[in-house]
Amino acid sequence: MKEVYLDNNATTKVDEKVLEKMLPYLKENYANPSSMYNTARISAKAIEKAREQVADFLGADDKETIIFTSCATEGANTAIKGVVEQFSTPENNHIITSQVEHPCVLSTYEYLEKKGMRATYIGVNENGELNIDNLLSKVTPQTILVSIMHANNETGAIYPVYDIAREVKKINSNTKVFVDGVQAAGKININLKDSDIDFYSISGHKFHAPKGVGALYVKKGNLFQPFMLGGHQEHSLRAGTQNTPYIVGLGEAARLAKESLNYELTEVKRLRDKLENGILKALNNAKLNSKSKERVPNTTNIGFEYIEGELILLYLNDLGIYASSGSACTSGSLDPSHVLRAQKVPFTSLHGSIRFSLSRFTTDDEIDFAIENVPKVIKKLAEISPFQDELKGLGLLN
Amino acid sequence: MKEVYLDNNATTKVDEKVLEKMLPYLKENYANPSSMYNTARISAKAIEKAREQVADFLGADDKETIIFTSCATEGANTAIKGVVEQFSTPENNHIITSQVEHPCVLSTYEYLEKKGMRATYIGVNENGELNIDNLLSKVTPQTILVSIMHANNETGAIYPVYDIAREVKKINSNTKVFVDGVQAAGKININLKDSDIDFYSISGHKFHAPKGVGALYVKKGNLFQPFMLGGHQEHSLRAGTQNTPYIVGLGEAARLAKESLNYELTEVKRLRDKLENGILKALNNAKLNSKSKERVPNTTNIGFEYIEGELILLYLNDLGIYASSGSACTSGSLDPSHVLRAQKVPFTSLHGSIRFSLSRFTTDDEIDFAIENVPKVIKKLAEISPFQDELKGLGLLN
Repeated sequence: MKEVYLDNNATTKVDEKVLEKMLPYLKENYANPSSMYNTARISAKAIEKAREQVADFLGADDKETIIFTSCATEGANTAIKGVVEQFSTPENNHIITSQVEHPCVLSTYEYLEKKGMRATYIGVNENGELNIDNLLSKVTPQTILVSIMHANNETGAIYPVYDIAREVKKINSNTKVFVDGVQAAGKININLKDSDIDFYSISGHKFHAPKGVGALYVKKGNLFQPFMLGGHQEHSLRAGTQNTPYIVGLGEAARLAKESLNYELTEVKRLRDKLENGILKALNNAKLNSKSKERVPNTTNIGFEYIEGELILLYLNDLGIYASSGSACTSGSLDPSHVLRAQKVPFTSLHGSIRFSLSRFTTDDEIDFAIENVPKVIKKLAEISPFQDELKGLGLLN
Repeated sequence: MKEVYLDNNATTKVDEKVLEKMLPYLKENYANPSSMYNTARISAKAIEKAREQVADFLGADDKETIIFTSCATEGANTAIKGVVEQFSTPENNHIITSQVEHPCVLSTYEYLEKKGMRATYIGVNENGELNIDNLLSKVTPQTILVSIMHANNETGAIYPVYDIAREVKKINSNTKVFVDGVQAAGKININLKDSDIDFYSISGHKFHAPKGVGALYVKKGNLFQPFMLGGHQEHSLRAGTQNTPYIVGLGEAARLAKESLNYELTEVKRLRDKLENGILKALNNAKLNSKSKERVPNTTNIGFEYIEGELILLYLNDLGIYASSGSACTSGSLDPSHVLRAQKVPFTSLHGSIRFSLSRFTTDDEIDFAIENVPKVIKKLAEISPFQDELKGLGLLN
């Protein structure tokens, strides 16, 4: 059966070139990189090369700013809990984030609220855009942390994290800024060197490295209480035996992502626009949820009025088209997306909102197949929808 | 050049059969296991199979007791910090461990001491054995946690964790027991089902799975504050996209380790004993540090009086023999081993103590090569030792 994978914001295929670089470290070069003998040094050197590749990918000033992690969830936990442990006092206990962050940020904020932190959650407008002035108006002398994602996983909206970091520091130079860059990495240019961002985390499996490896950028001079305590690895900032094969893979994936960035911004965007326009044109009940002015090139989120999202996914699955109704990390929950609710998507299309996310491996053929079949599925589901009158009114039923 | 890898307590070679099982999940089966479509279900099922394999390996009652982690350091941080967060009160703030634990336990305990916990560190006798009565005498109504490793990484000493757990619970049934099982897994039988152990952590790369994956056993009914906060993965006890390839590898490695256990207990032990006896017989200045009555079959730790350990490793490295002077996690530190100091190894052999650790891939040929060359290296180093008189007295110099 044909398979059309349009869920690259959930995870991506490991690039064959990435796997090829990893394999020697899953075979003969298995020594512990912390050990002292020759073969261990091969691993240690490979890790430092990957550190350079990731630093280069993120536009960081120095490879020593990069700490390898097991995933972006660990990166977010490390940065957020680490800053709070290092800097919070009974007085300085205010932390800010947005309502549309990934669960790894929101869950950590909720946890910290229980521990006595005061948290402010900034909303978005109906295009999914953050109001920076609103955010900045919340920064006080008691604010120790602002966490804002670089790009939203569900809509692809890009948030102006460089401007936010700069302006936050003008108000309170002690406030630390953490950016969850998971959905930006590989899709837009990242330049941390000249920014005021203190911490930035990425996840390899969103740009064709395997699941289970990520990196946390820590701007020079930043202190934090380490999260994973134990040995001296990663300059004593992240204990645990280094995962050489995946770290090498992350480095190569970063190199390839940098090399492919122009392709993402042109060809992947062309395919995404073709899919989006194709669906919107074919269906009167299709409403674009990805309405922000700035958006990553691979993502579209479309609400289908009066149709149930889970059913859409089920029918698409039967055709070999893989998409999602929200973050894979919130799967299993029946609540509609917190991101779409924050931008006040009307309930008529909220429950039928589907995210399609492409990668550099997506082809014109696959997009044509999706453009042909998504409307068929929606029309078929219209027939069994309880909203017959509304769907007739929209011309989806005779 | 011949390579004789005798540092399997630092890390092991990935078994080819393990890699083979992993590869489909690094290639075509890349979907996020939390997603809803067909290919994602393949990954989700593979993870559940691995969970069963690991549960079976640990003699656990149910696969739902197994949480996958990124490493044993994460397992220890999760269990120890999680219990303390869940159960500590200003009154009940006492935690116990031993002086010979791995850095991931000791660092976490030191951190918790700074947070107001009271910690007791139990010592060992000169054979490296724990005094259980001493340990039990420290358990009070305020004790919320006892952490004891199953086997020591440096000497191979096995600690009676089942007895400890049972007796601790008799004194205070609310005390939780965490066992760092990293150096036991694959070397001795593990049976958690019938034990009073609450938490048990293992690391894949110590038994021929890759670095970067582990498991934490959580006995049914045990609560703890999760460490990694975010999505709903692993029953909401460990957030972060699941690392399908490594989890599958861990499952297969667990299966193979169980299958190979008898070989470890007989053949690996025979080779270890041959190496140990060969070296001890050849050198009057060689003193056994692995003196506990119970010991894992693959490890020996030998102190070479009046010789510097780092130099021994350097010379062995030049011959392609890879061993270590302590935990890889403490590499870079010049302090002599905290484990050997705890058992009061005299300073004359403390600095020249070397750990040799074998695996099921170690051959008779390799052991013969080591038996031939280790004494040569020691005798060569004796010539440049500042302790000429002492070494002459021992017959190492003419």
